[in-house]
Amino acid sequence: MSITVVGSIAYDTVKTPVGTRERMLGGAATHFALAASFFSTVRAVGPVGGDFTERDFERLRTRGTLTDDVTVVPDGKTFFWSGEYGQNMNSCQTLDTQLGVFGEFEPQLSEGARDCDVLFLANIQPTLQASVLDQCHAPRWTALDSMNLWIEIARDDLVAVIERVDCVILNDAEIRQLTGKSSIATAGRELLAMGPSAVIAKQGEYGAILITREGFFSLPAFPLDSVADPTGAGDTFAGGTVGYVASQPDRPVDQELLRTAIAYGTAIASFNVEEFGTERVERLSLGEAHARVEQIHQMTQFSHPVDPLEVEQSAEESIA
Amino acid sequence: MSITVVGSIAYDTVKTPVGTRERMLGGAATHFALAASFFSTVRAVGPVGGDFTERDFERLRTRGTLTDDVTVVPDGKTFFWSGEYGQNMNSCQTLDTQLGVFGEFEPQLSEGARDCDVLFLANIQPTLQASVLDQCHAPRWTALDSMNLWIEIARDDLVAVIERVDCVILNDAEIRQLTGKSSIATAGRELLAMGPSAVIAKQGEYGAILITREGFFSLPAFPLDSVADPTGAGDTFAGGTVGYVASQPDRPVDQELLRTAIAYGTAIASFNVEEFGTERVERLSLGEAHARVEQIHQMTQFSHPVDPLEVEQSAEESIA
Repeated sequence: MSITVVGSIAYDTVKTPVGTRERMLGGAATHFALAASFFSTVRAVGPVGGDFTERDFERLRTRGTLTDDVTVVPDGKTFFWSGEYGQNMNSCQTLDTQLGVFGEFEPQLSEGARDCDVLFLANIQPTLQASVLDQCHAPRWTALDSMNLWIEIARDDLVAVIERVDCVILNDAEIRQLTGKSSIATAGRELLAMGPSAVIAKQGEYGAILITREGFFSLPAFPLDSVADPTGAGDTFAGGTVGYVASQPDRPVDQELLRTAIAYGTAIASFNVEEFGTERVERLSLGEAHARVEQIHQMTQFSHPVDPLEVEQSAEESIA
Repeated sequence: MSITVVGSIAYDTVKTPVGTRERMLGGAATHFALAASFFSTVRAVGPVGGDFTERDFERLRTRGTLTDDVTVVPDGKTFFWSGEYGQNMNSCQTLDTQLGVFGEFEPQLSEGARDCDVLFLANIQPTLQASVLDQCHAPRWTALDSMNLWIEIARDDLVAVIERVDCVILNDAEIRQLTGKSSIATAGRELLAMGPSAVIAKQGEYGAILITREGFFSLPAFPLDSVADPTGAGDTFAGGTVGYVASQPDRPVDQELLRTAIAYGTAIASFNVEEFGTERVERLSLGEAHARVEQIHQMTQFSHPVDPLEVEQSAEESIA
């Protein structure tokens, strides 16, 4: 059982109210792999330049991620992004983007990568996502991410890929933008009608919503005392979620399984933002992730009167 | 057992993408009373002008709310507010505010109102909230709401009232503004240190967080296909929450009780926004509210492996 993830591997320079880091290992495939590798073997597919260090290859290989499908372009530069977060960490200003080798990326998957059990298409051009789907033999379960840029300039291509995957994982604002619906419930059902069996709306610090034909699930984020760097939280969330799905090959990917999966995605993402870049998740243990899932479980449970009559009874008593 | 609520009784003219209503019954005390009256006798304390109609008195008396403490100023005008909501219902532009009799409101509670079991101080000037606390005999449980204006111009007065109540119910943005902390977890603990035993952060369409010395609870909002008018959602939420607390006089007001209370607040508030003003909650039944609490319960539950070793086991198996 293995997961193939196709997406960016990058160097990030990040400034937040907590501090600054220069050229940290980043990228969607990186953050995804670091989280998903708790649950399954991950193959990362993406390009890097001659500037990509052996130390960062090692970081990517944390917990056994296979990097045979990471293409090194010796004369090229690794995708570079630089951004600065505002005081509340919700706003981020991009200071610099240098696509480098990512700009000419045309994924060519190895046999091992094509043979995956679960496929995650991180945020890349929708036509490239379609090409990866074409190359893969029959993965049991497929999910994709995307971004506002592709919704704006390549909407038809994006919809064509959405029609072919099992699960869409997008920010809630992107789901609204894509469907033109202000209600996430309505928007989610519209995406389900395109083909996928699951839609996951990421809500950042507020949590995530799952919409399937069986109904809704909504899980709040884990409340943190301090956030050092939100970069990669969404990809870490996707990695934990998709990774958990991959770890349960004998179970149908239904609401029940996805709910638990989202709890793991939420838990691991909450660790991701506590430190910069991949720092925290690199040295995270599954025991720690599990303990946080337990904390999230504790903080979302409530008891309620089983019988409406009990409530009416108690209301009548209190009025009397 | 009764609840006293002190706050505005108003006429609202509201324009939303769904429609427009002129001079509907509104105000914090009104929305609060309509929700809390499912669980306990409510006494509304607030001023109205000679323009306040008998029909609106009847609306306020839905489910038995006592209006003896509603002061009619025959020569005055009822508080009037007019606003327009943007496409996503998250932004609202105030078009007109005429304080009318509310501008000279100095609460003088009747013996019945002073003798309440539970007291809710809706959003009014903090010194008036303090005056109400002075007038009340020993209420078993007290809660307050406030707003950005008082945090800006009367912060010390507001802190002085917060020190005297059991529970603070504010928007998350107001909690951040009041404490200067961007983390709701940290901000919540800072408010607990001022004296209250519970802090409830309202997050609008995202739900609510409860912070007590026992820990956290986080409950997402109920996903709706369409929102007609968000006006009064926060006060309806407070009414359902505080009302449920009042309905359980023999139980300590601890995490467990407050969690269930917040589920009722969330459920009733979700009905409130489905139609304009008080339209929906006026004809809501407790059975409907209970059914929605059950739906919210269903959409927030997840199962998780009890033993971390089980997860590691299944990860090892899937890698093998």
